[in-house]
Amino acid sequence: MTSIDSSEILGDIGEFLREDIGRGDITTQATVSPDVRGMGKFLAKEKLVICGLEVAEAVFAHLDPESPELDSTFNEGDEVEAGTIFATLKGYADVLLTGERVALNLMQRMSGVATLTRAYVKAIEGTGATIIDTRKTTPGLRMLEKYAVTVGGGKNHRFGLDDGILIKDNHIALAGGITKAVTAAILKVGHLHKIEVEISNWAQLREAIEAGAEIILLDNQTPGEAAKLVEMARQLNPNVLLEASGGMDLDRVRLFAEAGVDLISVGRLTHSAKAADISFKIHTI
Amino acid sequence: MTSIDSSEILGDIGEFLREDIGRGDITTQATVSPDVRGMGKFLAKEKLVICGLEVAEAVFAHLDPESPELDSTFNEGDEVEAGTIFATLKGYADVLLTGERVALNLMQRMSGVATLTRAYVKAIEGTGATIIDTRKTTPGLRMLEKYAVTVGGGKNHRFGLDDGILIKDNHIALAGGITKAVTAAILKVGHLHKIEVEISNWAQLREAIEAGAEIILLDNQTPGEAAKLVEMARQLNPNVLLEASGGMDLDRVRLFAEAGVDLISVGRLTHSAKAADISFKIHTI
Amino acid sequence: MTSIDSSEILGDIGEFLREDIGRGDITTQATVSPDVRGMGKFLAKEKLVICGLEVAEAVFAHLDPESPELDSTFNEGDEVEAGTIFATLKGYADVLLTGERVALNLMQRMSGVATLTRAYVKAIEGTGATIIDTRKTTPGLRMLEKYAVTVGGGKNHRFGLDDGILIKDNHIALAGGITKAVTAAILKVGHLHKIEVEISNWAQLREAIEAGAEIILLDNQTPGEAAKLVEMARQLNPNVLLEASGGMDLDRVRLFAEAGVDLISVGRLTHSAKAADISFKIHTI
Amino acid sequence: MTSIDSSEILGDIGEFLREDIGRGDITTQATVSPDVRGMGKFLAKEKLVICGLEVAEAVFAHLDPESPELDSTFNEGDEVEAGTIFATLKGYADVLLTGERVALNLMQRMSGVATLTRAYVKAIEGTGATIIDTRKTTPGLRMLEKYAVTVGGGKNHRFGLDDGILIKDNHIALAGGITKAVTAAILKVGHLHKIEVEISNWAQLREAIEAGAEIILLDNQTPGEAAKLVEMARQLNPNVLLEASGGMDLDRVRLFAEAGVDLISVGRLTHSAKAADISFKIHTI
Amino acid sequence: MTSIDSSEILGDIGEFLREDIGRGDITTQATVSPDVRGMGKFLAKEKLVICGLEVAEAVFAHLDPESPELDSTFNEGDEVEAGTIFATLKGYADVLLTGERVALNLMQRMSGVATLTRAYVKAIEGTGATIIDTRKTTPGLRMLEKYAVTVGGGKNHRFGLDDGILIKDNHIALAGGITKAVTAAILKVGHLHKIEVEISNWAQLREAIEAGAEIILLDNQTPGEAAKLVEMARQLNPNVLLEASGGMDLDRVRLFAEAGVDLISVGRLTHSAKAADISFKIHTI
Amino acid sequence: MTSIDSSEILGDIGEFLREDIGRGDITTQATVSPDVRGMGKFLAKEKLVICGLEVAEAVFAHLDPESPELDSTFNEGDEVEAGTIFATLKGYADVLLTGERVALNLMQRMSGVATLTRAYVKAIEGTGATIIDTRKTTPGLRMLEKYAVTVGGGKNHRFGLDDGILIKDNHIALAGGITKAVTAAILKVGHLHKIEVEISNWAQLREAIEAGAEIILLDNQTPGEAAKLVEMARQLNPNVLLEASGGMDLDRVRLFAEAGVDLISVGRLTHSAKAADISFKIHTI
Repeated sequence: MTSIDSSEILGDIGEFLREDIGRGDITTQATVSPDVRGMGKFLAKEKLVICGLEVAEAVFAHLDPESPELDSTFNEGDEVEAGTIFATLKGYADVLLTGERVALNLMQRMSGVATLTRAYVKAIEGTGATIIDTRKTTPGLRMLEKYAVTVGGGKNHRFGLDDGILIKDNHIALAGGITKAVTAAILKVGHLHKIEVEISNWAQLREAIEAGAEIILLDNQTPGEAAKLVEMARQLNPNVLLEASGGMDLDRVRLFAEAGVDLISVGRLTHSAKAADISFKIHTI
Repeated sequence: MTSIDSSEILGDIGEFLREDIGRGDITTQATVSPDVRGMGKFLAKEKLVICGLEVAEAVFAHLDPESPELDSTFNEGDEVEAGTIFATLKGYADVLLTGERVALNLMQRMSGVATLTRAYVKAIEGTGATIIDTRKTTPGLRMLEKYAVTVGGGKNHRFGLDDGILIKDNHIALAGGITKAVTAAILKVGHLHKIEVEISNWAQLREAIEAGAEIILLDNQTPGEAAKLVEMARQLNPNVLLEASGGMDLDRVRLFAEAGVDLISVGRLTHSAKAADISFKIHTI
Repeated sequence: MTSIDSSEILGDIGEFLREDIGRGDITTQATVSPDVRGMGKFLAKEKLVICGLEVAEAVFAHLDPESPELDSTFNEGDEVEAGTIFATLKGYADVLLTGERVALNLMQRMSGVATLTRAYVKAIEGTGATIIDTRKTTPGLRMLEKYAVTVGGGKNHRFGLDDGILIKDNHIALAGGITKAVTAAILKVGHLHKIEVEISNWAQLREAIEAGAEIILLDNQTPGEAAKLVEMARQLNPNVLLEASGGMDLDRVRLFAEAGVDLISVGRLTHSAKAADISFKIHTI
Repeated sequence: MTSIDSSEILGDIGEFLREDIGRGDITTQATVSPDVRGMGKFLAKEKLVICGLEVAEAVFAHLDPESPELDSTFNEGDEVEAGTIFATLKGYADVLLTGERVALNLMQRMSGVATLTRAYVKAIEGTGATIIDTRKTTPGLRMLEKYAVTVGGGKNHRFGLDDGILIKDNHIALAGGITKAVTAAILKVGHLHKIEVEISNWAQLREAIEAGAEIILLDNQTPGEAAKLVEMARQLNPNVLLEASGGMDLDRVRLFAEAGVDLISVGRLTHSAKAADISFKIHTI
Repeated sequence: MTSIDSSEILGDIGEFLREDIGRGDITTQATVSPDVRGMGKFLAKEKLVICGLEVAEAVFAHLDPESPELDSTFNEGDEVEAGTIFATLKGYADVLLTGERVALNLMQRMSGVATLTRAYVKAIEGTGATIIDTRKTTPGLRMLEKYAVTVGGGKNHRFGLDDGILIKDNHIALAGGITKAVTAAILKVGHLHKIEVEISNWAQLREAIEAGAEIILLDNQTPGEAAKLVEMARQLNPNVLLEASGGMDLDRVRLFAEAGVDLISVGRLTHSAKAADISFKIHTI
Repeated sequence: MTSIDSSEILGDIGEFLREDIGRGDITTQATVSPDVRGMGKFLAKEKLVICGLEVAEAVFAHLDPESPELDSTFNEGDEVEAGTIFATLKGYADVLLTGERVALNLMQRMSGVATLTRAYVKAIEGTGATIIDTRKTTPGLRMLEKYAVTVGGGKNHRFGLDDGILIKDNHIALAGGITKAVTAAILKVGHLHKIEVEISNWAQLREAIEAGAEIILLDNQTPGEAAKLVEMARQLNPNVLLEASGGMDLDRVRLFAEAGVDLISVGRLTHSAKAADISFKIHTI
């Protein structure tokens, strides 16, 4: 992340801290002298892909602008074994205590997404396909979660409804058919955008490509059906891109990759990744 | 939820929509005429506990203040089988399409949390214990997730660091011992608050209770250890409350409840619940 | 504009009113009784393309939510002659007086942009080219001004730096050449986006297209040079899009269109359009 | 500008950058390494009055708080010839590229306003009159544009509706006459404010001054009419101030100044100034 | 207050409610069913000037947009005796309970300011002087408190540092004397503003008036000194306005009024008014 | 205050400055050169308890981030005699002038609250009772005022409606009796909270304690009645806490303390404290 990305990604940290701290961390205020300094250690309690070092650092920096940087010999995206202390941070003990939960809540979620993405990426290794995410992200955390997907090795689909034309079954029905929908989209869209259309059978596939779609989404097909549709599509237009989605279990995803699609989008990367198990232990120094 | 709760819980919906819509839903604008009306149906694609009806309704109302209310014969907290259409909504088709993803992202997460909580609550049915949540919530969604826990049948632990004194191992170490920490907390805290202390052995338990702690947190104990500590605690003060936390798998949680604790806090209710599988299908009307 | 567009475009009106009203419209408060009703008439004092009816209406609605709608027999984009009263509005006289300046400031600017765009669009009528805008918009008013361009008959280029890859001379120099820049962009960009590259000569043109650029920007070329580059580009890739920009005077723009480019981007549509001359006269009713 | 002014004037820069950058400058991120440093040069492509150096600097400082200051041998308000490089800035190349457009959009507008104001100021040089602006500013940019007017050599009229009493024809009609309106205003207004009244003939002029108006606005008069009204006004009250407005073409404005008015307000200074032509070229260093 | 005033004055009510309600009114939620309706009665527990009816109404309307209007036979500024029920409000009982404290906190403060102002206004009745307020208001509540002063019968001094030139002793010292300060101010200030100067003796008074000051502030003078300075000032310029401030006890203020000053500014109106004693009793209906 | 507290307490200072400065401090800008430096002295003009040093410092730091720290040999809570210069601050003279009023408005109010609290605390010295505040605070300033109460030697009651269960007469009436209300509250409330009930006679007292109330509020009782109720309450539950409120004049408060209550809540600490008299004098340096 450059400094520019950071401002986009880190912008809500003050809000997250307010949510947790409210009118003050009364336990820490009562029990810990404000001049005690400590060191906190981030410990991986299971095997995981590290994600969120800069975000965690920013949480503590928000509470104390003079808080030093996280100290780590690891990088975003490194895979560490259970038991690894992968980062440490020195600072005022009250700052470490008050920021701990928000830092962990963010880092555990981000590492969870990165870890799950990595598993999917490995599952299709060697095929030509790419794992991508969806808009099925946690409301308020889209940029963080999409960043975590890239750390895990995936790529990003649309960032929002304004970021590309994707004509789904609902749009087709309401527009009065694929040709009408694609034609309208071509008229509307900027010249820098391509048009993607969701299809569910051979007739739709042909109609979409003939109307000008440059990307085809195969939703909820079997790998076998997908393979056939991929082949047909390439005959119509060898440059068309094929995306598969729907029911992408980790043990089935390779079948789709081998069916020849270019892109495999996986909602669960962001909507159902479990939090990576990370603890933060503080010692006086 | 009363109207007052709602304003707290629903406050960020505009922000969530902006995150997804950005500069506009260009696909819908291009393909769907703004005067077409449609009906959307919420379909449970697996067995789940419904949560978030009012929130989903608010998403569409934010886009169109004249959007009618959700129509449903179910209530928050009802358990429905896979295949159930549990709510419908009429409105302008473009509004339904543009709001769909945010409504689903929220409702799937909330129903996921409620469904998992329900499973925990059932697992300890008949014991005297209560399932409670933690502060391990998604940043920005704490109120929504804590609400979902109550819909699932659980109760809420602290809403934030300002909402109660919970002296953990880190605080004890930094304060110079349990007695010092509890004494300082008693001085600081308002008269409406009780003090909870995390302990890990019998000596700490006794010191905490004698110093004035009214609630004891047993973190990462085995059920057997927990049972012994509960018994000892009750001898020191029959009114003390006992909370257990740490490693609360669904198939182990009943052992803790039977160990006699009053409260069992489960982080995964909110940090690792998978999204409930819900779809939204739109038809012209 | 659908209601969804509106919320994006109208969002800052409260801010604009605060800027003008500050602590209160002391003149109106002192001189006009709050129960007097009036009718305001929007008068075109020169020939212009109407733009901003809904925006003007929203200004008054912000001051008085029960303010009735603008009454007009004209539509956005209609061209009216000097002397035309093109819209009227009834309401409390103090609301009309207090909102007048902000409503006019917005509508005059928007109509100014639409009117200038219309002139450019007419100037190239019958050629295959399209007039598009740039990012040279007024800070804070980009959505309003880009909307005004479409009302005038033009189309929109990128809405922001996140909305498409446009590799300019500065990027090329800093990336170490066109091929490097385009290759890096292909790796980074989502599958829904195309890549545009600014070139200034034949060698660059060839390198860009061979590296994978799908759109070519010809900046500050003469019409003659542009015509040659267009022809060369089409030989390399008949599907490539050509955009011309730089020095697009109204009396020269047709030469570029006739040179065969697809798109002509004109910064002055938004950065130098003069305000359309519109007055607002209020009568008691 | 002192630091206090700056905070008022520079406050919206973050918002302007967000408008342009959205979710990230994807072209720069893809093509420029974040550790490359560069130097940007501001070049006047036409004769202009410099305005906005501090604002441009603030744009880059917002992206990178450690960005160095603009380097310039010129001051706000200096007039430079076409071809002059009037300022340079060193920094990270990605910061220069990402901030370029917003910095230029602001500086070109501000220099445009200052340049046009300077022309008006010169046109009336040697008369006793003063060029002032109006509330016909760009919504959201009033403070910046009024600042640019002063850089050009003009003075500022009201900053908003709360900043002075100016009774216009609409107010007079709705109040039931000049005397009623002025009397009500005297009652309402704070003791630090004077009252200005728009009049269109001799009878109104007399009534306004007799009612207590200390400033008279002559709107849409010819220079000859204005001269007569000025003379009459001075006979009634030698201390009264006279302002002329309406149709103030650059080649006619001196006639009004010579008619003896004190103030000439010119809406086009802010609503129709064309952007000054400035480019920003970046080199690696 | 017109609807326009209201938006300025009522804008922070949501913020005030959030401050008090936080994450929810847990007592009311636990004990009062959301469908119970009630009536609340505002009771004056001492003699007071009513101020804040519209504000109190807005508090409840913020919690429940369908909350009915306050019912009252009294108007802002009416003086009522102890024991008077001066307004009633019907609504959901939970809304009445949750909004009660904020409504009372505002109304008690506003009525306190209005009541104290009324006492000062009565104390100088029949003299030509006017009671005005100062900038010594509660941070965040300036508009509400200045409104309350007018309800009590006083007038408003400056609303902020931007709302008029008042040159105080500190400015004079730092500017290098009265003449320099006034001359600089005349150059800077808009033509709608007058200039006020604080003086402490006869020499300063003369210098200020000769430099062009139109208003003179006599700070911390005795009534006798004030009388002399007033007389001298009128000889220099019969139109000059005289303001007295400093140590304005209620039993001394008439002496200043009788000394011939035009304006008497009283800081304690806003910084030290005690809260009017008002209670709010709720009954089921 | 630790740095964490500060961010909560100091958060609105920018808002307070905007309220006072508006579009700029035109007097200071006109009369004081921006490079002049000065020293300001805070002078106690009456005996007072100092409160708000850090807040005043933050006001100037907001205007000039490089403004040095306040220099003082006194601490928050120290009592100083009339005539004491208790703090000084060096800085740019224009910053000192522009920030003066907001800094004083805050510090005078905070010191006023602290001074009055100190008087109450001294009045009950030697009894076992504690002076506490209420929610009768100035809207928008609750955290600052509650902080001032602690500086004066008092303790804080609830920070808001979410911060504890306090069942008042209105709740009891609407819930259908004390037992119902307390039972419902026990079900609702988190395990870290105690329940307080307002009672007005012996029967209510018994019912409340038997239902599970752990704190009893005696509102508007005489000291004699209070003493009797305290004794009765202790017989029912020796651990119950007793709070008295209502009509707590400074010369009567000791009677309540001697009646044996644990807590005495005093609304006037925050709703009717008069501003402490402090001046700020600036000299060039």
